[in-house]
Amino acid sequence: MTVPPLPALMIEPTVRAALLEDLGRAGDITSDAIVPAGMHAKAALVARQPGVVAGLDAALLAFRLIDPAIKAEVARPDGSKLARGDEIALISGPARGILAAERVALNFLCHLSGIASATHSIVEAIKGTRARVICTRKTMPGLRTLQKYAIRVGGGFNHRFGLDDGVLIKDNHIAFAGGIKPAVARARAAIGHLVKIELEVENFAQLEEALALGVDAILLDNMSVEEMRRAVALVAGRAVTEASGRITPQSAPAVAATGVDLLSSGWLTHSVTTLDIGLDDR
Amino acid sequence: MTVPPLPALMIEPTVRAALLEDLGRAGDITSDAIVPAGMHAKAALVARQPGVVAGLDAALLAFRLIDPAIKAEVARPDGSKLARGDEIALISGPARGILAAERVALNFLCHLSGIASATHSIVEAIKGTRARVICTRKTMPGLRTLQKYAIRVGGGFNHRFGLDDGVLIKDNHIAFAGGIKPAVARARAAIGHLVKIELEVENFAQLEEALALGVDAILLDNMSVEEMRRAVALVAGRAVTEASGRITPQSAPAVAATGVDLLSSGWLTHSVTTLDIGLDDR
Amino acid sequence: MTVPPLPALMIEPTVRAALLEDLGRAGDITSDAIVPAGMHAKAALVARQPGVVAGLDAALLAFRLIDPAIKAEVARPDGSKLARGDEIALISGPARGILAAERVALNFLCHLSGIASATHSIVEAIKGTRARVICTRKTMPGLRTLQKYAIRVGGGFNHRFGLDDGVLIKDNHIAFAGGIKPAVARARAAIGHLVKIELEVENFAQLEEALALGVDAILLDNMSVEEMRRAVALVAGRAVTEASGRITPQSAPAVAATGVDLLSSGWLTHSVTTLDIGLDDR
Amino acid sequence: MTVPPLPALMIEPTVRAALLEDLGRAGDITSDAIVPAGMHAKAALVARQPGVVAGLDAALLAFRLIDPAIKAEVARPDGSKLARGDEIALISGPARGILAAERVALNFLCHLSGIASATHSIVEAIKGTRARVICTRKTMPGLRTLQKYAIRVGGGFNHRFGLDDGVLIKDNHIAFAGGIKPAVARARAAIGHLVKIELEVENFAQLEEALALGVDAILLDNMSVEEMRRAVALVAGRAVTEASGRITPQSAPAVAATGVDLLSSGWLTHSVTTLDIGLDDR
Amino acid sequence: MTVPPLPALMIEPTVRAALLEDLGRAGDITSDAIVPAGMHAKAALVARQPGVVAGLDAALLAFRLIDPAIKAEVARPDGSKLARGDEIALISGPARGILAAERVALNFLCHLSGIASATHSIVEAIKGTRARVICTRKTMPGLRTLQKYAIRVGGGFNHRFGLDDGVLIKDNHIAFAGGIKPAVARARAAIGHLVKIELEVENFAQLEEALALGVDAILLDNMSVEEMRRAVALVAGRAVTEASGRITPQSAPAVAATGVDLLSSGWLTHSVTTLDIGLDDR
Amino acid sequence: MTVPPLPALMIEPTVRAALLEDLGRAGDITSDAIVPAGMHAKAALVARQPGVVAGLDAALLAFRLIDPAIKAEVARPDGSKLARGDEIALISGPARGILAAERVALNFLCHLSGIASATHSIVEAIKGTRARVICTRKTMPGLRTLQKYAIRVGGGFNHRFGLDDGVLIKDNHIAFAGGIKPAVARARAAIGHLVKIELEVENFAQLEEALALGVDAILLDNMSVEEMRRAVALVAGRAVTEASGRITPQSAPAVAATGVDLLSSGWLTHSVTTLDIGLDDR
Repeated sequence: MTVPPLPALMIEPTVRAALLEDLGRAGDITSDAIVPAGMHAKAALVARQPGVVAGLDAALLAFRLIDPAIKAEVARPDGSKLARGDEIALISGPARGILAAERVALNFLCHLSGIASATHSIVEAIKGTRARVICTRKTMPGLRTLQKYAIRVGGGFNHRFGLDDGVLIKDNHIAFAGGIKPAVARARAAIGHLVKIELEVENFAQLEEALALGVDAILLDNMSVEEMRRAVALVAGRAVTEASGRITPQSAPAVAATGVDLLSSGWLTHSVTTLDIGLDDR
Repeated sequence: MTVPPLPALMIEPTVRAALLEDLGRAGDITSDAIVPAGMHAKAALVARQPGVVAGLDAALLAFRLIDPAIKAEVARPDGSKLARGDEIALISGPARGILAAERVALNFLCHLSGIASATHSIVEAIKGTRARVICTRKTMPGLRTLQKYAIRVGGGFNHRFGLDDGVLIKDNHIAFAGGIKPAVARARAAIGHLVKIELEVENFAQLEEALALGVDAILLDNMSVEEMRRAVALVAGRAVTEASGRITPQSAPAVAATGVDLLSSGWLTHSVTTLDIGLDDR
Repeated sequence: MTVPPLPALMIEPTVRAALLEDLGRAGDITSDAIVPAGMHAKAALVARQPGVVAGLDAALLAFRLIDPAIKAEVARPDGSKLARGDEIALISGPARGILAAERVALNFLCHLSGIASATHSIVEAIKGTRARVICTRKTMPGLRTLQKYAIRVGGGFNHRFGLDDGVLIKDNHIAFAGGIKPAVARARAAIGHLVKIELEVENFAQLEEALALGVDAILLDNMSVEEMRRAVALVAGRAVTEASGRITPQSAPAVAATGVDLLSSGWLTHSVTTLDIGLDDR
Repeated sequence: MTVPPLPALMIEPTVRAALLEDLGRAGDITSDAIVPAGMHAKAALVARQPGVVAGLDAALLAFRLIDPAIKAEVARPDGSKLARGDEIALISGPARGILAAERVALNFLCHLSGIASATHSIVEAIKGTRARVICTRKTMPGLRTLQKYAIRVGGGFNHRFGLDDGVLIKDNHIAFAGGIKPAVARARAAIGHLVKIELEVENFAQLEEALALGVDAILLDNMSVEEMRRAVALVAGRAVTEASGRITPQSAPAVAATGVDLLSSGWLTHSVTTLDIGLDDR
Repeated sequence: MTVPPLPALMIEPTVRAALLEDLGRAGDITSDAIVPAGMHAKAALVARQPGVVAGLDAALLAFRLIDPAIKAEVARPDGSKLARGDEIALISGPARGILAAERVALNFLCHLSGIASATHSIVEAIKGTRARVICTRKTMPGLRTLQKYAIRVGGGFNHRFGLDDGVLIKDNHIAFAGGIKPAVARARAAIGHLVKIELEVENFAQLEEALALGVDAILLDNMSVEEMRRAVALVAGRAVTEASGRITPQSAPAVAATGVDLLSSGWLTHSVTTLDIGLDDR
Repeated sequence: MTVPPLPALMIEPTVRAALLEDLGRAGDITSDAIVPAGMHAKAALVARQPGVVAGLDAALLAFRLIDPAIKAEVARPDGSKLARGDEIALISGPARGILAAERVALNFLCHLSGIASATHSIVEAIKGTRARVICTRKTMPGLRTLQKYAIRVGGGFNHRFGLDDGVLIKDNHIAFAGGIKPAVARARAAIGHLVKIELEVENFAQLEEALALGVDAILLDNMSVEEMRRAVALVAGRAVTEASGRITPQSAPAVAATGVDLLSSGWLTHSVTTLDIGLDDR
C-alpha cells in the first residue's frame, strides 16, 4: 500500500524555513560568484546504500522554492525500496538554483529516508507476527509531522501526535491521582468519545487493575520478554498491548513473538542514522 | 572555557513552536484530566548515562513558557561533564505544567546533549594534536543554530552556518567555472573582505593549484590517512587543512595524527545518538 | 468540576493578533488624543444577562498585553454561572490602555461566554439522561481551540479537533470505497492504535452493517426521534451513538430521551448568540 | 453594483491558517485511508436556504491551497441572490483534496454568506429611506477584514476598521476629558486631515453641544424612535446621524423612518446565523 | 504636547525581527568571545548633534529583549529637544548584552530621531502660519508605523496610513473614471461615513470642479507659489488644501505663506538624514 | 559583471509584508471604488533622474503578488545605468492591481536604486585606485538583505551582514579584555576557521600591535588623510585596511589615494537619498 502524501501546505512552511536558514542574508555566495547565470545542470538523487525513500516531496519542494524553473522526474517515489546506486529522481534546471537547494533537499531526504529505512528493517524482521512498529513523541522539535510520516512510509504506525489526541496515563499521573482507578475515571469523565485511553503498567497487579477498568491499550513498561509473554496471555485480547524500548531488527523478533500488538521505539525518531543519498551529475 | 549561551531571543521561537506542536489544539488532556489543579511537583533532570550537558536553556525555557510559576535550580549547566545519575537541574512548580512541558524539554536536552557528548568524545580522543573537531551544514531543518551551539559546548568548532558566510568551492563549482583558477578568481572578485575561501581538492594536482592561488582553507576529500599526511606536509601551514568523513573516537586519532587542522563530521548533527536524560520525581 | 484552563502559550498568539488587528497602524487615536497620559481607571466586566463565563483568560490577557500595568481581580472565573449584573472581574490601571483593549477583550469574552452559556442551557435541559452535548468542526476559522474550550466550560464535550485525530466515515467515503465494509477495513488498516472510528449511517441496513464491523461510534444522520429510539435499541451499547442537527434546550430532551449518547450541534460554534457583557466604570 | 473582491494576498494567510488548524499534524486521515489516490470527484456548492453569497473566494482558495489541481466554475459570485437549491460553484478534481478542504471552505462561505444575507435583509427592509446599514468593531477575532467585506457584499457599509482610522468619542472619553468641548478640541488637535470625528450623545444637551462643535457624525445612544426623530430634526443635516442597537428587518423600518443616516448593528458580525450551504455530489 | 507612545505590542515584532536579523545564526561572536561573562557596563545614549529624540522606546526595547537584566534611566524621552552632547538615556547591565543590542538600538533611534528632527525644523520654520507639516506613504517597507509616529513626535501630522483609510483621487483615477465628477460620485457611493475624500488637481478648472463637488481636501499638484496663493484664495476654506513636494526649512515659509493648510513631504520618510547619536561609556 | 539576483524566496516575505502594511484592512478603497473592474492599464517605470537600477525584482514582485495577471517586460534590469527618462520596465494588466501595488513597488525601487546610485558615484570617483566601497551594519531595520544587495548592484562590496559572520574588535572590546592582545587571542580561540578578524585602531601604537598579532583587517578610526597614508605604508599589505566615515564622490578620491583597501560608509544605507522613479501611463 502506498502511504498518502502530506498536502504541500503542511510541509511548505518547514521547507521554506530550512532554506532561509541556509541562505542567510546573502544567499549562496559561492555558486552566485562562480557559476555563470545562464548555466543549466542535470543531476540525480542517488542512493549510496540500500533503504527506503521518504521525504522526496520535501526535497523536490526545496528545489522548486529556490527556483520554479527546476524540474524533477521521479523514478522512485516515497516508499520505494532502494538498492545502492538506484536513482530516486532526476533534477534539471538552472545550475545555481540546484546547487543552492542541494544541501537542504538532502537534509530532508536523507533524514526521513533514514527513518523509513530503519522502520522498514524492523517491520521486515517481525513479518508474520501480529506486531506493528510504532513511534513515540521523542521527535526532533519542529519535525514531528514529517518524522511521523516517514514512520508510516517505512511500514510503521503512529502513536499519539501530541499531548492532545490520546490519553496516556503514566506512573506520575497515577501517583498524583492516588491510584489507577481514579486516574482512569477522571480521564474518562473528561475526554471526547473518539479519544482512547492507554495506561502504562509496571507489574501484574497494575495490569489486572487496568484490565478490570477496560482501558483501550496497555503499555508494558520495562518487562522482560518472558514477562511480556505472560502479560499478553493475561490480557487475552481485551486491550491492545504495547512493548517499548530500543528495538532493533535483531531484538524485535523475540519481542514480537510474545504476541504483543505494538513495538514502540523512540530511537527511530531521536537517534536514527541518516540514509546516505547524494546528488550526482548526469 | 565556558561557551557563551545563546540569547533567549534566538531560541524562544523554536521552543515555543515545539511546545505548540506537542500541545496541539487541546493541550495535555491526560494531565489536565487527572492531576488536580493546585498540585505541586518537584523533579530532577537526571543523566542516565555519562556525557556532556547541552541545551539546558532550551529545556528550562520550555517549562517556563508552559507556566512561569515553574522554577529551576541549575546544578550542572551546559558544558558540564555528567556521570550516570548526576542531577542536571531541579524543577519545581505546578505539576500539570511540569508534565506538559516534560517531553519537549527532554527532546531538546537529550538531542543537544547527544551532540555535545559525541563531539566531546572525539575532542578527548585527539587531545594533544593540533586538530579541531568541526561540524557541517548537514543539520536537522530548523535546528541549525542550536545544533551548532551544541557542537561548541562539546568542545568543537563551527564550519559555515549557511551558504552565505563563507565560500566553499566544490567539484561542481570547479566544473562549471572551467577550472580551479577561474573559480577562485571569481569568488575573490565577488566577496567581502571578511569572507574566506575554502576549496575541496581530490588529488595533489588540485592541491598544488589551490596552494598557488592562496586559498584560506583546503578540504581534503576522500583521502587515505597516508595521503592526508602527505597533503599536510605539502601545505606546510600555507592553508588550513580539513579532513572530512565519519569520524569516531576510534578513527579520529589516526586522522588527527596526520597533522590536519580540522576533522569535520556530518554525523554529529545528522545521525547522533540522543543522550539518555530523564525527569525523575524528587 | 472546573475545566482546566488552556496554557497562555496557546491563546496568546490569537489575542495578540486580535489586538494588532484593532490597533492598526496608529493605535487608539481617540483615547491617545483625549485621555491624559497619567490617568488611571477602574472598571468591571459585568454581565448584562444571565449565562456562563468563558474566555476570561483571553480577555484579561488582552488588557495585559496592551499594558502590563493593568491589573485584574477575578470574581467569577470561567465556568461561573452569571446572573444579570454580576461582576466577573475588576480591571484597574492606566485609562488609555483599558480603553484600547476593551473591545478586543469583550469580543473574546462575549463570544466564548455565548458558547458556554448556550451549551450549558442544553446540558441543563437533558440532565438525568445519559446524553452528552458535543460540538463539531463547524467553527470560526482560527478560533477552534478557544471555541472548543468554551464548549467544555459550558459542560459539553468535544468531537474531533480536526481531520487528523479521529476517523469519521461519511456517505462520500462509503461511495468512494464501494461500501461500508471496505471503507472500515481501509481505515482500520491505516490508523494508529489510539484512533477511533465513527461511521455515519442513514438507515437501518447501514446501521446493522456498521455494528457488525465493530466501529466505535455511529452517527445517526437525519433520523426522526422515533427512528433514533429504535436505532439506540438496536445498537444496545455496542457502539457510541451520536445524534446531530440543531439542538435547542427545547428540542434536546426528546432527543436525549431516545437514549443516544451524544447530541452534536454545529450551531454552538457557528451561529451562537454573543453573551452581553459590558465594561462599566467603578 | 458589484463589491470589489479583496486581493488574494489579504485573505490567503487566514485561509491557510484555517486549513492547517483543521489538518493538524496528520492531515485528513479518513479520506487518505479510504479514498483511492487517483479518484476524481465533482461536487457543487449548493444553497440550502435563500440568501446572498459572500466568501466564495476564500472558499475556493481553500480547495486550491489543498490541491492546485482542484478547479472551480463559479455560477453565482459574491453578491448573488440565492434561492434554495441554487448552485454557487462547481468544484472538480482529486477526491481526497475536495474532501479535505470541504469543511474549511464551508466554514468561510456559510459564515460570510450569513453576514451578507442578514445585512441584505435589513437593507431591503429600509429601501426608500436615506438610511444605510453599517457594522461595528464587535467582530470575531482575526476575521475583521473578511466580516466587514461580507457586510459590503450584503449592501451595507463599514464603520471604523479599528481604533486607528476614525475618532469615536464615547462617554468615557468625555468623562476623562472633563467635557465634550475639551474632548473634541483635543481630538481635532491631534488627528490627520483625513480623519473624521464622531461623538456619542445620550441626550439633547449633549447633542446641541456636539453640533455647535461641528463634529462629523453623531451616535444617538439609547434613544427611543421618537427621540431619534427629534434628534434628526435638530441635526438638520449638519452631521451624519447614527442609530445603534440590535436591528432586525422588523425593527429597522421604524428606525430608518426617523431620518437617521446610519443603522449600526453589532449583531451582524458577532451573533449572525450561518447561511446553510452544502457540498453535493454532481 | 507630548505625543502618546505606541503600545509596546505594536513595535515589539519589528524590534525583535531587527535583532534576529543582526544576531543571525550565531549571535555576537565578537563580544561573546572577548567580553567576560559576568562583566557589567554603563553607557549613555548621547546626541552628537542637535535634534529631537524619537524612537527611544524601540531602542530601549532592543536592549531589554537581548537581556532583561539591562536597565535604562531615561533623561530625555521622545519629543525632547537635543543639544550636542545631551544625554538621552543611561543604560546599565551585562556588558555582552549592551554590546549585542547597541547597533540595532541605534539604527532605530538615529533614523527615527532623524525624521523627528527634520520634521521639527520645518515646523519651526513655518510657525505663525496656519500650515501643518504632513508625511506621505513613501515610507521604508515595514517601518510605516514607526516612521509616521516619528513625524508626530517632530510636530508633524500624518496623511493616510495606507490605501484603506482615506480616499485620494489622482489623475489616473480621474482618467479611468472618465472625469472628476464620476470619480467622486463613485467614491462617495462606496465609502463609510468616517472616510474623507481628497482630490489631486493640476489646474484651476479641476480645482473649481472639485470644490463644486464638495470634496474634503484638495492636493495642489505641481503649482508655483503664486498659483497656490490663488488656489487657496479660490478655495476660501471650503476644503483643506495640501501642497506637496520637497519641503525644506528654507522653502517652507514661502509655501506656508500662501495660506495652504498642509505641506506634505515624502522626503521626511524616504530620504531623511539620520540623527547622529552614539553610545558612550560612562 | 552582473550581480546575481537574490532568490525570490528571500525577498517575498518582505514584499508581502510591505503590501499588507499598505493595504490595511480594506485594501485600495480609492481604486476599488473608482476604477471599473475589467479595465486594463499599461504603464512604465521611468527614471526621473540619472542613476543605477536596483530592486526591480522586489518592485515587480509587488505587482505580481497583488495580481498574478499583471505582466512586466524588463528593459533595464538591476545594475543598468539610467539616464533621465529611461524606461526601466513596462507593466501591463488589470488597472486596479497596478494602482494598488504602485506605491509599494516604488518604495522598494526608489530606495534601493538610491543606494545603488550613490554607491556607484563613489565607485566611479575612485576608479583606478585599489579601494573598494563597502557598507556597514547601519541599515534600516528589516531591510538589511535588500540594502546590502543594492550596495553590490552599485559596484560596492559588503562588510559583515550581522554580528555573527565576522569578528570586529572595537575600543569597547579592547577595554573589556584588558588590551588588544588578549582580545585577539580570545577571538581566535573561539571562532571557526572561515571567520576573519578585523580590529579598529585609533593610533599607531595600536596599529603596530594589531599587525604583530596578524589580524586580517584593520579599521583606521578617525584618522586624517595624512595619517591614513602613513598607516597604509606601515601595514604594507600585511592586512586589509579600512577607512570609515561619511564618504562622498567629492571626498572619496583623496581617501582612496592613500592606498587604503576599503572605504566604508554608513551613509549609503541610513541616510541615502531616494532615486526618483515614477510610474507613467503608456
